[in-house]
Amino acid sequence: MDEHESGYFTEETSVDVVTNRNKNAENQRLRAVMEVITRKLHEAVKEIEPTDREWMEAILFLTKTGQICDDYRQEFILLSDVLGVSMLVDAIQSRRPSGATENTVLGPFHVGGAPDMAMGSNICLDQKGEPMFVHGCIRDLDGKPLEGVRIDVWQANDEGFYDVQQRGVQPEFNLRGVFKTQSDGRYWFKAIKPRYYPIPDDGPVGQLLGHLGRHPYRPAHFHYLITLDGYDKLTTHIFDPDDRYIHSDAVFGVKQSLMAEFKRKEDAEQAAAHGFDGSVFYDVEYDFVLVKSKTTALTRPAQK
Amino acid sequence: MDEHESGYFTEETSVDVVTNRNKNAENQRLRAVMEVITRKLHEAVKEIEPTDREWMEAILFLTKTGQICDDYRQEFILLSDVLGVSMLVDAIQSRRPSGATENTVLGPFHVGGAPDMAMGSNICLDQKGEPMFVHGCIRDLDGKPLEGVRIDVWQANDEGFYDVQQRGVQPEFNLRGVFKTQSDGRYWFKAIKPRYYPIPDDGPVGQLLGHLGRHPYRPAHFHYLITLDGYDKLTTHIFDPDDRYIHSDAVFGVKQSLMAEFKRKEDAEQAAAHGFDGSVFYDVEYDFVLVKSKTTALTRPAQK
Repeated sequence: MDEHESGYFTEETSVDVVTNRNKNAENQRLRAVMEVITRKLHEAVKEIEPTDREWMEAILFLTKTGQICDDYRQEFILLSDVLGVSMLVDAIQSRRPSGATENTVLGPFHVGGAPDMAMGSNICLDQKGEPMFVHGCIRDLDGKPLEGVRIDVWQANDEGFYDVQQRGVQPEFNLRGVFKTQSDGRYWFKAIKPRYYPIPDDGPVGQLLGHLGRHPYRPAHFHYLITLDGYDKLTTHIFDPDDRYIHSDAVFGVKQSLMAEFKRKEDAEQAAAHGFDGSVFYDVEYDFVLVKSKTTALTRPAQK
Repeated sequence: MDEHESGYFTEETSVDVVTNRNKNAENQRLRAVMEVITRKLHEAVKEIEPTDREWMEAILFLTKTGQICDDYRQEFILLSDVLGVSMLVDAIQSRRPSGATENTVLGPFHVGGAPDMAMGSNICLDQKGEPMFVHGCIRDLDGKPLEGVRIDVWQANDEGFYDVQQRGVQPEFNLRGVFKTQSDGRYWFKAIKPRYYPIPDDGPVGQLLGHLGRHPYRPAHFHYLITLDGYDKLTTHIFDPDDRYIHSDAVFGVKQSLMAEFKRKEDAEQAAAHGFDGSVFYDVEYDFVLVKSKTTALTRPAQK
């Protein structure tokens, strides 16, 4: 007799009455999570004091957000992204000692099965875009170069689309590749200078951004998923600090430490040495620092 | 340059960074609402510290909740109901002086266009269920009987289904009717004793209730929507205090003041006077007290 214990539902008792009803939850974690959700939701309602119409608008917004989802589109992840929730979950799950490379969101465009490539390969398969040479070193917190690190990289093309968004237009696995470090910890590969692009903005989340006076763009970046047995998985981006949207990423993914200079070089000899046509290319250097896993015995790399 | 002002997104700055991004919202109310939603959502995430998997479970739960909605089913309202949000919004919107009849949720089964009926009519059109005589008086806070009050009543049948849930099985507008008071403020009509029934529990919300160890039942009740020009609209239920679920309404709609005794009477003469077959019927007496609208000039009854 739940309400008997805590009284009937009123503005004052609302959290206790609902939480008390969930006391027989099948596990303690669910019970604890629901207690927080109930409390914060009721706090929000009490502070907002929504009208019936506003409450119904919220119901219909959530409904539309669910209904536009399909196998290729996840509008609730987008909503989580633009409210900063995805980044916050990532930040909480990726607390690292200073000196370690910071995480950022995975994003929806990672694809398993990208080809293993020899160090130095060009991940751009269609020769479109401005050439970019990317290089650096992967070390542990003590500065020791790490061998056998798996570096999974991916990026959008110079029009702002990933291969999976342009099937039939871009070659399969365009701008994707997997590299592995030798004992010097060094990595290098060829790619193209990325550009900003919008998140899908033709649905309820795009409409919300519009009502909030916000644009849907992400600043130019490329992605890394870096794994080594015994070390924490590193999911991150490198950002172009000169991008027009660097201070207003629609999904809040930018961190100060994840910017690298995209140096424009005009040097025929160096360009030729990299195997680029012409004399102009961009040079991006970024070093990564991995952290030993706390539970080494239990850790396996994401993919072999 | 939003992030420049408040720094980049971190666990510490997350609320300010997101809220600052919404500063150009098209209206102040939306901006204020989003500030609260962002703050409470981030507080919840920081307290829960969800794993990636838990976050994805939440995303998929919300997605499924949207996708099961159609013209006849609104699973997000159901979610709002079982989390106590619908009742909380109703409580906030229906604060009344003591002595006034309390509101409760409208529920999804109100239908416009129910027939006007002569006082004393039987709203049960198919003769199923145990007969019930309902009566009382509608007054203002000073005890003055109110004339011309529109009383819109509806209820589920003795199997727990509303007519709109059993089209073709129950007659149209079964167990619905609209009555109007005379100068004595009295009302009386015939109906059937209601019984408890489950909210739709074959979707994501029903699954959640299962995981929370909760049943999906609402205790026996019937509904009133009571309107009079110049007075606050009263949306409420009358509950049977002897119902097995009276202390655990799945949607938290029960209030102490909304219970009425369902008196079982075995009296052939009285039953005959009411026009009931047999000698057994239930007698329910409940008086309502309406409150003058604060903004009388702007108030119109919901329906004429």
